[in-house]
Amino acid sequence: MISAENPYTTVSVQDLLTANVEHSSAFDLIGYLSQRRDMVETALDKAIPVVYPEKIYEAMRYSLMAGGKRLRPILCIAACELAGGSIEMALPTACALEMIHTMSLIHDDLPAMDNDDLRRGKPTNHKKYGEDIAILAGDGLLAYAFEYLAVHTPQVPAERLLQVVARLGHAVAATGLVGGQVVDLESEGVGDVTLSTLNFIHAHKTGALLEASVVTGAQLAGADQEMLERCSQYARNIGLAFQIIDDVLDITATGEELGKTAGKDLQAQKATYPSLWGIPESQRQAHHLVEQAQAELTIYGTQAIPLMALADFITARKS
Amino acid sequence: MISAENPYTTVSVQDLLTANVEHSSAFDLIGYLSQRRDMVETALDKAIPVVYPEKIYEAMRYSLMAGGKRLRPILCIAACELAGGSIEMALPTACALEMIHTMSLIHDDLPAMDNDDLRRGKPTNHKKYGEDIAILAGDGLLAYAFEYLAVHTPQVPAERLLQVVARLGHAVAATGLVGGQVVDLESEGVGDVTLSTLNFIHAHKTGALLEASVVTGAQLAGADQEMLERCSQYARNIGLAFQIIDDVLDITATGEELGKTAGKDLQAQKATYPSLWGIPESQRQAHHLVEQAQAELTIYGTQAIPLMALADFITARKS
Repeated sequence: MISAENPYTTVSVQDLLTANVEHSSAFDLIGYLSQRRDMVETALDKAIPVVYPEKIYEAMRYSLMAGGKRLRPILCIAACELAGGSIEMALPTACALEMIHTMSLIHDDLPAMDNDDLRRGKPTNHKKYGEDIAILAGDGLLAYAFEYLAVHTPQVPAERLLQVVARLGHAVAATGLVGGQVVDLESEGVGDVTLSTLNFIHAHKTGALLEASVVTGAQLAGADQEMLERCSQYARNIGLAFQIIDDVLDITATGEELGKTAGKDLQAQKATYPSLWGIPESQRQAHHLVEQAQAELTIYGTQAIPLMALADFITARKS
Repeated sequence: MISAENPYTTVSVQDLLTANVEHSSAFDLIGYLSQRRDMVETALDKAIPVVYPEKIYEAMRYSLMAGGKRLRPILCIAACELAGGSIEMALPTACALEMIHTMSLIHDDLPAMDNDDLRRGKPTNHKKYGEDIAILAGDGLLAYAFEYLAVHTPQVPAERLLQVVARLGHAVAATGLVGGQVVDLESEGVGDVTLSTLNFIHAHKTGALLEASVVTGAQLAGADQEMLERCSQYARNIGLAFQIIDDVLDITATGEELGKTAGKDLQAQKATYPSLWGIPESQRQAHHLVEQAQAELTIYGTQAIPLMALADFITARKS
């Protein structure tokens, strides 16, 4: 979580937007994040009630409701608002994104994959419910994500919703996070992973869904082609920055701070940005990417402040 | 596969439809199935080309292109035609259904689930590619199924396609095959599984996707509420008949005939219909269900002949 003492998140946004800011009060990112997160948590809680057979609903909820930054849903809502849409229009897709993200975490943690025991400070899904239920909880969340947004989205024409369905499918399939995870697994223990392979892994494993979060938000509100492209570019940049910071935190943060096992990458001999560039250069690159991301959106003035601040949040975060 | 010597599939359809049949020539089910299967195989083959990272595309194709009856796609196309739609309208959803079905087979075969080594006469996906890739191949197929139908379906209004997305999601999630598999796993080795539990398992584990196959086909063509309900009822009946025959075949057929390990249910102490009713009564129940299924569609006359014949095919099959 971002610390209240860190002035970085508001100051740099103000610097960038001096010409456009109409109100002199600084944007309250912490309040914004906390309000949006509560909204998403409430919607997620309602989305999956526990019915027979209870075990699978409990397993899905166990990982879905385990906290987390809710970054993807918040990005989706912010992009929808940037494009003139409402929170209500974006909320079901926002929830679907979090269901899909949770699916990917549950499956990535499995013994056959990254074999992790701890996630968000709690035993991983398969440690709690068994491997069989964990696999099925992931499958259930993925399938339900599509049903949920198709059924519950208000005020969005069906054509746009279908584009969102297609975009989400593309972001998860072998063209997206599944493909990224495959190359990540293949690269484990291989000494000479190139920068282009590392970029492929992260552009797909984490980048594709982050990009889909922003782009689907804008799609829901009927954004024009230029805005969709700017949103894509913004998201690609913050996605990569997010991953670089993730790699850095894996080295510098404690397990307690992360809520998961620290130092896993080193242990698994995973290629990471710090292993290629070192920590200071990795941090510099992440900051540069965030600046590039923000530059894409300056054209939209004050409307873009939340997405600008979210970009800063990514490099400032401690977990 | 149905044998050419078995006259059952055409005779009973003729008996049922005597009043409606305009042409005296018997419906050529074997030719129909083979033609539709080829069509689906061609579309599936084109749907997933092998690109980087090749391994995951090969793994998805390995299970997707391993043969099988393509029953779900054929049911979808037949229902679309019953409702006045075209093959082209149904083909992308038909392929999506087969991708989803294949995902469920890959995940069900995993060591943490049914732990099967053989499927359709070949090593299971995880035996060939490893557990990690098998899990990801399933995830990739499931996500791609939604993208594929959203992008590739021609001449269907977006509203209808969204209904199809919702229906498919519902059929796979905890409300469908995932829920059925959970109860199936929970019931393993439990001596006193009731008929209602067994019915729940199969209505969800295999029934939900079969029902979705028929209903989505009709939805694509804009079927009215009565036809959708008749299609649902038809599909629920043949779905259960299909499962009863599956259980019977697990006992009576050889592994070679099935293309998978025979006698697995007995070995795993799984509750089955033959274990509750015995084999002759199970066969009688299956035939009765098929008759009920066919009765739902007699109102549609000769238009329903393919679905009638498909219902017979289910009880006559040997694998």
